[in-house]
Amino acid sequence: MDVAACRALDAADPLARFRDRFALPDGVIYLDGNSLGALPRATAARVASVVEAEWGRDLIGSWTAHHWIDLPRRVGDKIARLVGAAPGEVRVADSTSVNLFKLMAAALRLRPDRRVILSEPDNFPTDLYIAQGLVDLLGQGHELRLAGPDGLADAIDGDVALVSLTHVNYRSGRIHDMAEVTRRARAAGALTLWDLAHSAGAVPVDLDGCDADFAVGCGYKYLNGGPGAPSFLFAAARHHDTLTPPLSGWMGHAAPFAFDGNYRPADGLDRMLVGTPPVISLAALEVGVDLMLEADMAALRAKSMALGTLFADLVSARCGAHGFRLASPADPAGRGSQVCFAHAQGYAIVQALIRRGVIGDFRAPDILRFGFAPLYVGYADVWRAVEHLRAVMESGEWDHPEFHRRAAVT
Amino acid sequence: MDVAACRALDAADPLARFRDRFALPDGVIYLDGNSLGALPRATAARVASVVEAEWGRDLIGSWTAHHWIDLPRRVGDKIARLVGAAPGEVRVADSTSVNLFKLMAAALRLRPDRRVILSEPDNFPTDLYIAQGLVDLLGQGHELRLAGPDGLADAIDGDVALVSLTHVNYRSGRIHDMAEVTRRARAAGALTLWDLAHSAGAVPVDLDGCDADFAVGCGYKYLNGGPGAPSFLFAAARHHDTLTPPLSGWMGHAAPFAFDGNYRPADGLDRMLVGTPPVISLAALEVGVDLMLEADMAALRAKSMALGTLFADLVSARCGAHGFRLASPADPAGRGSQVCFAHAQGYAIVQALIRRGVIGDFRAPDILRFGFAPLYVGYADVWRAVEHLRAVMESGEWDHPEFHRRAAVT
Repeated sequence: MDVAACRALDAADPLARFRDRFALPDGVIYLDGNSLGALPRATAARVASVVEAEWGRDLIGSWTAHHWIDLPRRVGDKIARLVGAAPGEVRVADSTSVNLFKLMAAALRLRPDRRVILSEPDNFPTDLYIAQGLVDLLGQGHELRLAGPDGLADAIDGDVALVSLTHVNYRSGRIHDMAEVTRRARAAGALTLWDLAHSAGAVPVDLDGCDADFAVGCGYKYLNGGPGAPSFLFAAARHHDTLTPPLSGWMGHAAPFAFDGNYRPADGLDRMLVGTPPVISLAALEVGVDLMLEADMAALRAKSMALGTLFADLVSARCGAHGFRLASPADPAGRGSQVCFAHAQGYAIVQALIRRGVIGDFRAPDILRFGFAPLYVGYADVWRAVEHLRAVMESGEWDHPEFHRRAAVT
Repeated sequence: MDVAACRALDAADPLARFRDRFALPDGVIYLDGNSLGALPRATAARVASVVEAEWGRDLIGSWTAHHWIDLPRRVGDKIARLVGAAPGEVRVADSTSVNLFKLMAAALRLRPDRRVILSEPDNFPTDLYIAQGLVDLLGQGHELRLAGPDGLADAIDGDVALVSLTHVNYRSGRIHDMAEVTRRARAAGALTLWDLAHSAGAVPVDLDGCDADFAVGCGYKYLNGGPGAPSFLFAAARHHDTLTPPLSGWMGHAAPFAFDGNYRPADGLDRMLVGTPPVISLAALEVGVDLMLEADMAALRAKSMALGTLFADLVSARCGAHGFRLASPADPAGRGSQVCFAHAQGYAIVQALIRRGVIGDFRAPDILRFGFAPLYVGYADVWRAVEHLRAVMESGEWDHPEFHRRAAVT
């Protein structure tokens, strides 16, 4: 493999045409779309239109004239097509953390005789924190039980109300077998809640095909919805009528504009809406989702796996002497759209790469994480990224004081 | 009073210069800033810069380079100056409904021996709904008790954990005496939670001066933050160390980027942050808040009262034969920045006015609500609005089938 071969792969790539749909800066190789997706070119105009024409000119009337009030439903139904859900099963609202709370609380009420939320120790922290807070808030003897991947299946017993897992691990990229875990959970009478933060728009997801019960997901990673974009939540239609919203806000009321003093849940999943929809953010997210819907998911997944494998192979071949340990599954079918390496100097190396325009990220304690968003990352990008990594290591430029000062990043 | 006198008042108005800071369309008299504030002219450029330069060009690095991660604190500290709070006592996050939940739940834990949330029947519905949902979720024998304004003071007894009221009523505009209610609550050992949706940026608020415990407020009304702008929450500093966040998300963790598996609350009110900050929306809100901070609150309140009185007097004098009943306190000192009239045909009349470019809103069952945002509404606007109302009534144009079809508005 050499750079010419990578260029040939780019020339034959059916997804290469999407690169120009993003406004990436020159000279940057962006391998952090799993943290913050890139800006679609169409977003700026859409946001400007919402701000200037809709808000500025049509003012309050835009709630109906420009269908602002429908955005959580309309964008939700579009995301549903990306995650194997039916119309009405996905709504956009709040943050992922808040949606985790809503669905965890609602799920526990559906299993009143059980007291365990089962998760795993290396789930994304907010998934664990929210469960811890909910257990503590309820004060009803619930428990967050953690089991690593090897013990997970056996831990799904008759005490488990809810199995709460992130489909693609945020650090390693390891994929859970959603169908198998969900099958085991159902067999044990437990419900499932899948966090799709690193899945939606990155790997094929078939929530309904797996009989999943609940899911949440992130708008600002592979869906390219913008920093802090609203999140989405999924509930299988079979649960809609029995869900009790713990955050019973007016947008989840059956008739929000009747200003009735008593809460009455809306039909379907709309009851899980809470406050006034964040219109500008929802519009930005819709642009990203529309763009993702243009891509063929099978082609996207094939390219994602090929890019990840190319990266892992090149790091092994060309940076093998520098102590990187693959921290993602070696089999591309077993990981999402990212590849991670562990290295004791991971933080400084990532900073040195960023200085060179190769943007990946660091996840404590020692993980260098590189995401390969197939809509805007190409094979030659991967080649160049590894060459930069090699240069950073061979020159020792990572070992500079300013690269060792840690700053908050997300 | 005639139109010339109104123009003279505009000419002498120290706040008149703010009108050009807003991008209001020609021919519109916007009396609905209490539902959705108008667009500040500076917002479009700021939003475009966040989208194109920060997100698009600087990508993930913007969390530090452009201080995205500080937005909930920075904008919160600015809002604090508008509501009589100290730095660190206000944070921006989530929706008003979600913030109500967070603070209600935290407040109940501070009064473990008490079981009553006290509110009033005509509080804004979401305030009641959230309390109902929380009581139901906890299942610990809590109760939402409602008392009308006359019985409220006596209802604050030793069972009351939290008095939860909206400072300025969303329909009538009636203002609660925050200092007096808070004093009574404290005397009875109860905590207070004030919803400032119709107060912040509209009337003087002195949370710390009143010894208020908690508050929430809305970003998209008088703060002109845009449709569905994030909300803010306040907690008096004396409570910060004892607050247990019910929505314990990663942004409220003491070290979000350490990715620790156990939740540990951040110092101060930061623990009440939950998910990733909605950057674009926060930036838009900051523009509105900055603009509001330029205005003198005493001048703003004086003009607000004068506009409301002018409107009420003109409606009485010039539309008196058409059956409007003042549904706001007659004393301007007793109401916020809005004036409401009840009329059986209120819905259709509001629609007919909107067709003429006079934008107020309707609140079920029969309320015509007109807000007077002093930064962009003038005295001559009020004159013209009443003349349009008179024309709508005298011509009977309100009685047209299309004005009777109700649509969802917020």
